[in-house]
Amino acid sequence: MKSLEELYEFVREGHKDYMSQLTIECVIFGYHDRQLKVLLAKYMGLNGWGFPSGFLKKEEPLTQAVARIVKERTSLDNIFLQQFYTFGDNDDRIHSWRSMLFVPELRKEFGEDNWLVQRTVSIGYYALINFEEADIKPDIIYEEFAWFSIAELPPLLFDHNEMVEKALATMRNQLYHQPIGYNLLPEKFTLPEIQVLYETILGKELNRRNFPTKLMSLQILTKLDEKRKIGQHRSPFLYKFDKEKYEEALKNGIVLAF
Amino acid sequence: MKSLEELYEFVREGHKDYMSQLTIECVIFGYHDRQLKVLLAKYMGLNGWGFPSGFLKKEEPLTQAVARIVKERTSLDNIFLQQFYTFGDNDDRIHSWRSMLFVPELRKEFGEDNWLVQRTVSIGYYALINFEEADIKPDIIYEEFAWFSIAELPPLLFDHNEMVEKALATMRNQLYHQPIGYNLLPEKFTLPEIQVLYETILGKELNRRNFPTKLMSLQILTKLDEKRKIGQHRSPFLYKFDKEKYEEALKNGIVLAF
Repeated sequence: MKSLEELYEFVREGHKDYMSQLTIECVIFGYHDRQLKVLLAKYMGLNGWGFPSGFLKKEEPLTQAVARIVKERTSLDNIFLQQFYTFGDNDDRIHSWRSMLFVPELRKEFGEDNWLVQRTVSIGYYALINFEEADIKPDIIYEEFAWFSIAELPPLLFDHNEMVEKALATMRNQLYHQPIGYNLLPEKFTLPEIQVLYETILGKELNRRNFPTKLMSLQILTKLDEKRKIGQHRSPFLYKFDKEKYEEALKNGIVLAF
Repeated sequence: MKSLEELYEFVREGHKDYMSQLTIECVIFGYHDRQLKVLLAKYMGLNGWGFPSGFLKKEEPLTQAVARIVKERTSLDNIFLQQFYTFGDNDDRIHSWRSMLFVPELRKEFGEDNWLVQRTVSIGYYALINFEEADIKPDIIYEEFAWFSIAELPPLLFDHNEMVEKALATMRNQLYHQPIGYNLLPEKFTLPEIQVLYETILGKELNRRNFPTKLMSLQILTKLDEKRKIGQHRSPFLYKFDKEKYEEALKNGIVLAF
């Protein structure tokens, strides 16, 4: 939302276009150069960090709504979005109804019977992107955005700490069943580089001999006739993804264990 | 719901107690003796099979609602329930609003502005039980229940065919990350018996030598000093679950590949 006027209009008339009992929460992970981060936002009227979120339009398919919300907040398009959990147990959400009306001026103007003042159930989605490629701009609701290292997260608003843990656990499980790396690594990369990507996301070291063997057995990598010189006696071969087989693996799933 | 009176009361007054934009759908899988089945219901006023479902109360935690709904429909208590997906893309659900008002008498009495006549988003949960242990009774909405083999499912109502596929795929992935078998096998079982359980759920054969090794490496089985005689020259050892380690594995997750 770009103006205060637009925000007032949304609070006043939004119930005509949006479903009121559901929100969509977006946990956007960013990887770049051995670092795994998550995108947090500061909401207008609240003192703390949380995830970008939004409402579902009454006649809008859910996945389309998620893509719209992520694009509105981050300018990102066509990214990998994955539903991870729907949250409906949190006491705060059930008993002290959260709403956009935490802004005192809005609460004064609209009061308790506004459509935003009620319990919501939240559908969580996560994304995994290259955070160097994102172009993120604050607006009237999201006053500030920042990338936080997942190892150094502050206490978050509402139940958002639980959300990021669940999103991370789901993404880690997903590694064993879907290929990752496309758009996260340079076009050509070494086996140690892709291993670091996996290790960073999993948050643990993987066996140096076992990992490349397992990965190659998926047949989604092509070995190039080209090396990268990284030291006097070290020049590992370069690889790239076989796009077609990668897409196939995305569709059909894989079983990986290392 | 036990009486027509109770049903009318629910349609008339339900909006006071229940959230109207969400439903909970329960895919209940049953395993027994090499068979994997799923519980289907025939709804009042509809000609076809679907899953038992229900609404979330306004002040009720989601997981508590799911347990309540499953218990109401099936008399089952304390069972393993797992959220698998929230469905909000289906065109039918978005554009031709589904409601309890598919019963002509109800439609006549209450009309289009009833709280049940609107788009809903559905939260899917699955359960895995021993179908020999379930005690399932029809009522006024669920006129008939039946266990169908997952290999022989009829075309289902709404988007329920997509739901059962997604539930099955999630359960199959889950096998690699959580132990199963407790309450599905007799207290003492042979390795071939637990292998058949895995094979039945996965819908494929597993390597006879590899599987027991992988399974034993999880350290959730105790080998007993006891054998079962199943033929002149075949009497495999019996095993049981180490309850404590099993619970630990449930909590912390496992990584299995066979």
